[in-house]
Amino acid sequence: MRDVAIIGVGMTKWGELWEKSLRSIFVETALLAFDDAGVDQIDSMYVGSMSSGIFVGQEHIASLLADYLGQVPVPSTRVESACTSGGLALRLGFMEVASGMSDVVLVSGVEKMTDCSGSEATYALGTAADQEYEGYHGITFPGLYALIARAHMEKYGTTREQMAMVAVKNHRNGAKNPLAQFQFEITVDSVLNSVMIADPLRILDCSPISDGAAAAIICPVEMARSMNKPIIKIIGTGHATDRIAISTRKDITWLEATYQAAKQAYAMADKKPEDINIFEVHDCFTIAEICVMEALGIVEKGKGGDAVEQGLTSLEGKIPVNPSGGLKSKGHPVGATGVAQVVEIVKQLRGEAGERQIKDARVAMAQNMGGSGGSTVVHIFERE
Amino acid sequence: MRDVAIIGVGMTKWGELWEKSLRSIFVETALLAFDDAGVDQIDSMYVGSMSSGIFVGQEHIASLLADYLGQVPVPSTRVESACTSGGLALRLGFMEVASGMSDVVLVSGVEKMTDCSGSEATYALGTAADQEYEGYHGITFPGLYALIARAHMEKYGTTREQMAMVAVKNHRNGAKNPLAQFQFEITVDSVLNSVMIADPLRILDCSPISDGAAAAIICPVEMARSMNKPIIKIIGTGHATDRIAISTRKDITWLEATYQAAKQAYAMADKKPEDINIFEVHDCFTIAEICVMEALGIVEKGKGGDAVEQGLTSLEGKIPVNPSGGLKSKGHPVGATGVAQVVEIVKQLRGEAGERQIKDARVAMAQNMGGSGGSTVVHIFERE
Repeated sequence: MRDVAIIGVGMTKWGELWEKSLRSIFVETALLAFDDAGVDQIDSMYVGSMSSGIFVGQEHIASLLADYLGQVPVPSTRVESACTSGGLALRLGFMEVASGMSDVVLVSGVEKMTDCSGSEATYALGTAADQEYEGYHGITFPGLYALIARAHMEKYGTTREQMAMVAVKNHRNGAKNPLAQFQFEITVDSVLNSVMIADPLRILDCSPISDGAAAAIICPVEMARSMNKPIIKIIGTGHATDRIAISTRKDITWLEATYQAAKQAYAMADKKPEDINIFEVHDCFTIAEICVMEALGIVEKGKGGDAVEQGLTSLEGKIPVNPSGGLKSKGHPVGATGVAQVVEIVKQLRGEAGERQIKDARVAMAQNMGGSGGSTVVHIFERE
Repeated sequence: MRDVAIIGVGMTKWGELWEKSLRSIFVETALLAFDDAGVDQIDSMYVGSMSSGIFVGQEHIASLLADYLGQVPVPSTRVESACTSGGLALRLGFMEVASGMSDVVLVSGVEKMTDCSGSEATYALGTAADQEYEGYHGITFPGLYALIARAHMEKYGTTREQMAMVAVKNHRNGAKNPLAQFQFEITVDSVLNSVMIADPLRILDCSPISDGAAAAIICPVEMARSMNKPIIKIIGTGHATDRIAISTRKDITWLEATYQAAKQAYAMADKKPEDINIFEVHDCFTIAEICVMEALGIVEKGKGGDAVEQGLTSLEGKIPVNPSGGLKSKGHPVGATGVAQVVEIVKQLRGEAGERQIKDARVAMAQNMGGSGGSTVVHIFERE
């Protein structure tokens, strides 16, 4: 298999983009990646999108978006694995380039979530859970993560304040990200006094409903070299599943798919958690970031809350997590999130992350998760 | 890249399976493929499904189905490209095995279409068209293909009777297929007198709404040899897109994505149309089979109708098309169709196709198409 590099990334400001359609958001974003890479043609493309069918009544977006991007007749593939659709697009694009089947591949993600009502969006997001055994009995996604939060508090003594600190940190980072949906800081008090969604989770524990896209152009390392591009390699990839319904798991505080996917990626990259300078992880809810850190081996089991409280995961900390602002502050157009993590990592590894730049960053990890952890994709990147 | 073989296939009877859920249909089918291949574990899986979100309110089926198949934590990927989702699952599985990333991969497709009303199903299928420029203006899929049929009749003199003969032939074949949804013959008269759907297409020109799944197990050829399996190789793959809205195409009677995908597959396999003994193609409507034959180069442009009328494409003809009964008689659970074509081809190439067996078949092609031709996947197979 060939080594693969990322030669261009693109992202526009995320938010409630009432005036734009799915196709316009996507095309605008993909063209930024084309410009950044210095290419105007691709051999193949992947689009991650969770539920364009329910959100905007449009399936077959692989064909639609290849068309609107002016790339017909290139092969175009949509992948879906709930909120990890974007990470999966990167993994398959990597496989296609590494195998030698294609050279220049666009990997992207997009979701347009605000064209339907809040209750329709809640229904659409619920289709990532086991509908027959979870959804139809009335539980929503905040409800599932609230159960996980309660169990984590009970088992490990994680506090309500520690969860709030995840949101506070991510908003502090996101306030420095001009593409983030929410570019303002919040306090622990404001989290603790915000509207209750599913006890103990309040609205400021939850990532928002967002519109947005993200894109990256990948190619063989040798081609990137010949184009005089900074060499940012994909050195590890992992993908795993877990039981979908949380009632069927042995321990709901443990994200086994994240553990398994990370294990594969660490082995392929020949890296350990302490070799990683930056983590972009899936903080769909504050408790999720805590559980993910434990499953990735960044901290010991049960110690995620403490690490946040001690400031270890802040921009200045030993193990910066979510310098982009994470899903909480940057926004969470579900299919796009996994690719936006890559956009942030590429900017960081190139030294182009402005006020939120992590000094001397060379190795980074992206962890992108579907549903309540039923699927996870992990990638490791290295700047030569 | 490594050579890839198909070592097992599975399919249950298709139809209106009221008493079964998406997950039960899928698991039953996948286990048949496991049994046929003689494996009980896989390294990875792909599921093609067009719109499980709209049809049954369930996205994230890659995770759900890995779980219900007892294969957690294997990587599991859902791909979607409307009605070519199944073909795409095969293509990505092929890429994963060929690249060396995995050895034993399940490729599958599933759709449960009868849990919603007819108008909801029509809406769901319409999401394969350009919703903003086609769907919202009132056109449905039969309407799009009716426009194509009228143009083909006008341009090439294709007759109403010739289109009916496609359905008659496919029902004749399907009557010999114990897994087909409609196992009975029809006549040209019954097609011409059936209910009008979108002039000139009548209900017997249209493939049905179906529930069903199909599955195949693939692995490197060397592994298949060591297992003493009949060697059925995937020797060519092609994938292409076309403008999604038919109003934007130069000639609506010409399926450019099918032409492009076939060109890639022929080149990779080093075969010409006349080398192929069996074609399984995407006859979502009778006119579609005629246009597909022309784009694949089986017959000259405009001669598809004549070829059917002359009996060239019947089981006993020179170029048998859709021995399985095609989408028209076998059924069309959209995401499963592309994989069911492979099931038929493997049975034919093994000599296990019973009453519909094509003698001495050694090379076969599957052509699977999304929407009104906005995306197409083509594969060529050879029995050693």
